[in-house]
Amino acid sequence: MAVNRVGFVGLGIMGAPMAANLLKAGFALTVWNRTPARMEPLLALGASAADSPAAVAAASEVTLSCVTNSPDVEAVALGPNGIAGGAAPGSVYIDCSTISPETARRVAHELSGRGIAMLDAPVSGGDIGAKAGTLAIMAGGQAEVFDRCLPVLEAMGKTVVHVGPIGSGQVVKLCNQVAGGLNLLAMAEAISLARGAGVDPAKMLEVVGAGAAGSWMLSNLAPRAIRGDYAPGFMVDLMQKDLHLVLEEAARKHTPLPGTALVSQLFQVLQAQGRGSDGTQAIVDAVARLAAGQDR
Amino acid sequence: MAVNRVGFVGLGIMGAPMAANLLKAGFALTVWNRTPARMEPLLALGASAADSPAAVAAASEVTLSCVTNSPDVEAVALGPNGIAGGAAPGSVYIDCSTISPETARRVAHELSGRGIAMLDAPVSGGDIGAKAGTLAIMAGGQAEVFDRCLPVLEAMGKTVVHVGPIGSGQVVKLCNQVAGGLNLLAMAEAISLARGAGVDPAKMLEVVGAGAAGSWMLSNLAPRAIRGDYAPGFMVDLMQKDLHLVLEEAARKHTPLPGTALVSQLFQVLQAQGRGSDGTQAIVDAVARLAAGQDR
Amino acid sequence: MAVNRVGFVGLGIMGAPMAANLLKAGFALTVWNRTPARMEPLLALGASAADSPAAVAAASEVTLSCVTNSPDVEAVALGPNGIAGGAAPGSVYIDCSTISPETARRVAHELSGRGIAMLDAPVSGGDIGAKAGTLAIMAGGQAEVFDRCLPVLEAMGKTVVHVGPIGSGQVVKLCNQVAGGLNLLAMAEAISLARGAGVDPAKMLEVVGAGAAGSWMLSNLAPRAIRGDYAPGFMVDLMQKDLHLVLEEAARKHTPLPGTALVSQLFQVLQAQGRGSDGTQAIVDAVARLAAGQDR
Amino acid sequence: MAVNRVGFVGLGIMGAPMAANLLKAGFALTVWNRTPARMEPLLALGASAADSPAAVAAASEVTLSCVTNSPDVEAVALGPNGIAGGAAPGSVYIDCSTISPETARRVAHELSGRGIAMLDAPVSGGDIGAKAGTLAIMAGGQAEVFDRCLPVLEAMGKTVVHVGPIGSGQVVKLCNQVAGGLNLLAMAEAISLARGAGVDPAKMLEVVGAGAAGSWMLSNLAPRAIRGDYAPGFMVDLMQKDLHLVLEEAARKHTPLPGTALVSQLFQVLQAQGRGSDGTQAIVDAVARLAAGQDR
Repeated sequence: MAVNRVGFVGLGIMGAPMAANLLKAGFALTVWNRTPARMEPLLALGASAADSPAAVAAASEVTLSCVTNSPDVEAVALGPNGIAGGAAPGSVYIDCSTISPETARRVAHELSGRGIAMLDAPVSGGDIGAKAGTLAIMAGGQAEVFDRCLPVLEAMGKTVVHVGPIGSGQVVKLCNQVAGGLNLLAMAEAISLARGAGVDPAKMLEVVGAGAAGSWMLSNLAPRAIRGDYAPGFMVDLMQKDLHLVLEEAARKHTPLPGTALVSQLFQVLQAQGRGSDGTQAIVDAVARLAAGQDR
Repeated sequence: MAVNRVGFVGLGIMGAPMAANLLKAGFALTVWNRTPARMEPLLALGASAADSPAAVAAASEVTLSCVTNSPDVEAVALGPNGIAGGAAPGSVYIDCSTISPETARRVAHELSGRGIAMLDAPVSGGDIGAKAGTLAIMAGGQAEVFDRCLPVLEAMGKTVVHVGPIGSGQVVKLCNQVAGGLNLLAMAEAISLARGAGVDPAKMLEVVGAGAAGSWMLSNLAPRAIRGDYAPGFMVDLMQKDLHLVLEEAARKHTPLPGTALVSQLFQVLQAQGRGSDGTQAIVDAVARLAAGQDR
Repeated sequence: MAVNRVGFVGLGIMGAPMAANLLKAGFALTVWNRTPARMEPLLALGASAADSPAAVAAASEVTLSCVTNSPDVEAVALGPNGIAGGAAPGSVYIDCSTISPETARRVAHELSGRGIAMLDAPVSGGDIGAKAGTLAIMAGGQAEVFDRCLPVLEAMGKTVVHVGPIGSGQVVKLCNQVAGGLNLLAMAEAISLARGAGVDPAKMLEVVGAGAAGSWMLSNLAPRAIRGDYAPGFMVDLMQKDLHLVLEEAARKHTPLPGTALVSQLFQVLQAQGRGSDGTQAIVDAVARLAAGQDR
Repeated sequence: MAVNRVGFVGLGIMGAPMAANLLKAGFALTVWNRTPARMEPLLALGASAADSPAAVAAASEVTLSCVTNSPDVEAVALGPNGIAGGAAPGSVYIDCSTISPETARRVAHELSGRGIAMLDAPVSGGDIGAKAGTLAIMAGGQAEVFDRCLPVLEAMGKTVVHVGPIGSGQVVKLCNQVAGGLNLLAMAEAISLARGAGVDPAKMLEVVGAGAAGSWMLSNLAPRAIRGDYAPGFMVDLMQKDLHLVLEEAARKHTPLPGTALVSQLFQVLQAQGRGSDGTQAIVDAVARLAAGQDR
C-alpha cells in the first residue's frame, strides 16, 4: 500500500525545501520545528503543524528528520516527546541528517525493538539541490523498507540509491565528504600554483576544468573562489563537523586517511580566522595564506 | 597565410596519434623519431620521414615535439641536429611535452634569437584523447603566434586555450597535475573509507560520483580501481615525473602545496613496490596499504 | 601544616609504583582499585585498603587518581561512591591521568562547590619513571594548593612544575604528546631513509643522536626499534588516545597541527595491523611499510 | 705515517673556524677561498695562501672542502684549477659540504681514477660547534682512509664516526636533517598548542624539554623562538637546500617520507614571507601563521 501520510522534523536550510517538495509531490505532510516560526511557510503550502516529534510521528506512516548532528538525532528520535514515543509499529523513520554511522545503528536498534523500521538517508547537493529536488540521497537499511519509501525519497532527490544495511547511508555520506574535501584542496592548490607562477587562474580553469582533472568543485566553486565570492553553498563549520565524523569513523575502523586529516587542518586555518560561516571554497584562502606575505 | 607544412618529432604513445590527426586534417607532415620503426605507421598514412629533428624543421613551417622531459626537449630543440639548426626564421616550434616552465622559457629565448617563435603547448587527455583528437591543449606564447597555429592545435585537441606568455602552458599543465593528483587521492581515500566501514565501494561511487564530490577521476578511474584493473591510462612513473616538476616550480615560486607533497609521497609507495608502470588509479592500493594487514 | 594522610585511586601500571613511592616517602597511604587484587602489593608495603574512592577520600587530606581517560576521571571523582562523596572540605584532589583539559576544568568546578580543591597533574616518564620516582609532573591549579601538595608530588617525580591554572597541566601534557609523537616520526623517517639508502641505521644513530637532531626518543627508543624490540614503553593505543585528546583540544582552540594529524594517521596504520599493544617505537614499521614491498 | 700537511678550500661561516681548529691542532695548513679577503684571519694564525684549489691540493696530503652544494663541490674538485688537477696520487680529498650522495660517489669515482682517495664527511653542529671543535662528523669512504685521516677529523669534531662506504656520510647527514626538521616541527606544534590553549610556552618547555619528548631543538632553539629571537643558527634557506637533497634521495630510493615532505612545505611558508635568512626556529611562526588571525 502506497505511503500517503508523511512527517518532517527539522525545517532548517535543508529540511524546509525538502519538506516543500514532499507537499508538491502530493503527500499529506505534518511538520514540527524547534523554532515554530520556521513552520509557517510550510503551513501556508498546506502542511499540518504538530507540537512535538512524537505528534508528527503519530500522524505519519513515514517520519523524516533533518537536524544538525548525532545528539540532535538522538534527541528527536529517542528523547522525551521523540519520534519513538509517537510512531506506530510498522511505521518508518528516515533520518536525512549527517551523523555518525554508529549513532544511526544505535537509534535503529532502539526503534526496531518497538516495531519501527529506520533508514539512514543523508543527502548531498546543498540548499540549491534541496529546493530543486535534485539531491543525491544515499540510503541504508532493509531493502524492502527502502523500496516502500522510494516514492518519498524520489520526491526530494534525483539520485536515490540503496547503498546497504543501516548505517551505510552515513558511511557513503562520509565518503562523499572525503572526496569533496580533497577535491576542494585540489582546487585550492591548483589556483595557488597558478597565481604563484604568474598565470591567470581563470585561464587555468578554462582548460583544467574540461579535462581529466575536472571536478564538480572546480566547475562550480572555483570561479566563485577566484572572484572572492565566499557566500556559502556549504559552510566551513559544517564541513568541519562532517570531517570530524569522518576521522572518528576512520579511527574506529583503523582506516588511515592522511589527505583528509590534512584537509581538516586546513579548514581549521579558516576557523582560526573567524571564517567558519564562509563557503567551503574559502579553502583557497587557507592555502593562499601559506604562500602570501600579506593577508586578505 | 595558412600553415600547410607541419613537422612532428617524438612519435610515442601520445605523439603518434597526435601526428596522425594532423595528417587527417590535411597537413603535409614530416616526422622523425629516435626509434625509426615507430615512424612506419605514419609513413603508411602519407607522412614523409626525415633523418633528424633539424631536417623535420627544415621541411616545416610549424614543427611540433612530444617527448618525455626537460632534457629531451633541450636535446631535440637545441642539441646537435636539433630543430634550431634546421628551422627557418619565421617558422614556429610548438612543444607539447610536459616540462619545466623554466626550460620552456629558456628554449624559447634561444630560438627567438634565431627568429624562430615558440609555443609551449602541453596536452591533457591521455592516449585516448590523443587518438580521438579530443585533447585539452594549454598554450603559452605570443597571441599572434597562437592564432596562426590554432588550426594545427585544433586538429589534435578539442579544448585549445591560449593561457598566457611563454611558459604559461607548462604552468597550467602543472596545475592540471596538482588537481588531478589530489582528485586521485580523493578517490582513493573515499574508497578506502567505504571498504574500511564495510560498504560496497561501487554503491558508494554510484551516489558520490553524481554529486558535488564528483570528478572525472571518480567517474572514469574509480570503477577500474575497484575491480583491480590497473592498466594505464597514465602511468605512475609519469605522474611522479610531473609532480616533481610541480614541486620544483612551487619551490621556485615559494608556493607551499602540502596536499600535492603528500600525493607525491603516496605515489612513491607504489614505486617502492615496483608498480611504476601501473595506471595512476593504483593510488587506491597505496592508501589501502595503510589500512590493510595484508598486501595485495 | 604538612600533608600526612594521602589516598590513591587507580593502581595500574603507572599508579601502583607512584603509590609505592608515596609510602616510601613516609606518607600514610589509603588505596582503592577496581580490581582489588592489584591492591595487595601495596598493602604488603603498609598501605590501608578502602572499599571505594569515597572511602579513600574520607581517610585522606590529599587524594590522587591515575586512571585511563576522561570518563574514568568523571566516574571516580563525581560518580557514585566517588571522591566528591567522601572528601572533606579543605582537602585536595590531584588527578594524574591524561584527560581532556575541559574535563579537568569541569570536575574542578564541581569539586570547588564542595570546598575541595583540585590540581590536574598528569605525568610523563612511563612505568620506568614511575618506579624510579623520576616522573615529570606538570600541574595546573591554584599556586597555594600546588605549594601545599608539592611534597606529595616530589615523592613521585623529579621535574615538578606548576604550569598555570586548572587545566594547564593537561594542556602541557598534550603538548608533550605532540612533541613526542613528532619526535617519534622524526626517528622513523630518519631510520627509513638510512635503510632505503643502504646505510646501517645503528651507525646513523651514533652520529645523529649526539647532535642537534638528537632527542630522547632517538637515544632511548631508536635502538630498540632497530633491533625489532617492540615491547612497550608506551603503547600505541594509549598514544592514539592522547593524540585524539590533542586533536580535539586543537580543534576547540582552532589551532591547526598538520604534523600531529599525520602522526595520528600513521599510528593508525599500526592499529590496522593489530599492533595497538606494541610500544610507540613501532611507528618505525608504519613508515617502513610505506617503503617496503614486503611486510614484517 | 701521520698526516702533516693539510689544505682547506671554502672558508665560509663553517669552513673558517674548522680550518682554524686544524691550525690549533698543529697541522701545516694551506687555504684558498673564492673571496680572498676571507683568508686573512687564517693567514694571521699561520696558514699559507694558495691561488687555487689545485694549488691547495698540490701542497697537501689531505685537502678538505666546505662549500654550499653539489655543483660547488664538482667545481672545486673536478673543475678548472680544481683539486683533481693538483692532488698527488696517494693523497686524500675530504669534502665536508652537505651535497647529494650521488654527487659524492661520482666525484670519488673520478678521483679514484687518478689515485686520489675521497671521504664524504659532512658535519653537524653549526658555527658554534665549528668554533668549539665539537662538530659531529659522519664520514663515508674506505675504512683505512678514514683511519688515516682520523686525527684531521678529530681536530674539528667531537663525534667522529665512520658510517660506511663513500656516499654514506651524506646519507647520514640527510637523515640528520630529516630528524632535525621533524624535531623542529615538534617544537613548533607544541608551542602553537600551548599558546592556542592559553598556557605559557616557557612553562610548557620547562617540563616537556626535560622528559621523553625532549630534544636538542626543544632545549636550544625553543627558548629563542618563544622570545622572538630568529637569529640563525642554521638558516631556513640552507635547511630547505638540505631538505630538497633529502627528498631527491628519497625519491631515488623510493622511500616515502610524508613528514619530511610536510616540513619542507612549511619552511616554504617562511621563504614566501622573505624569511629565508632567519634561523630554522622561525618554523614556529609558520605554524603560528596557520592559527593566527594576525601576522607577526
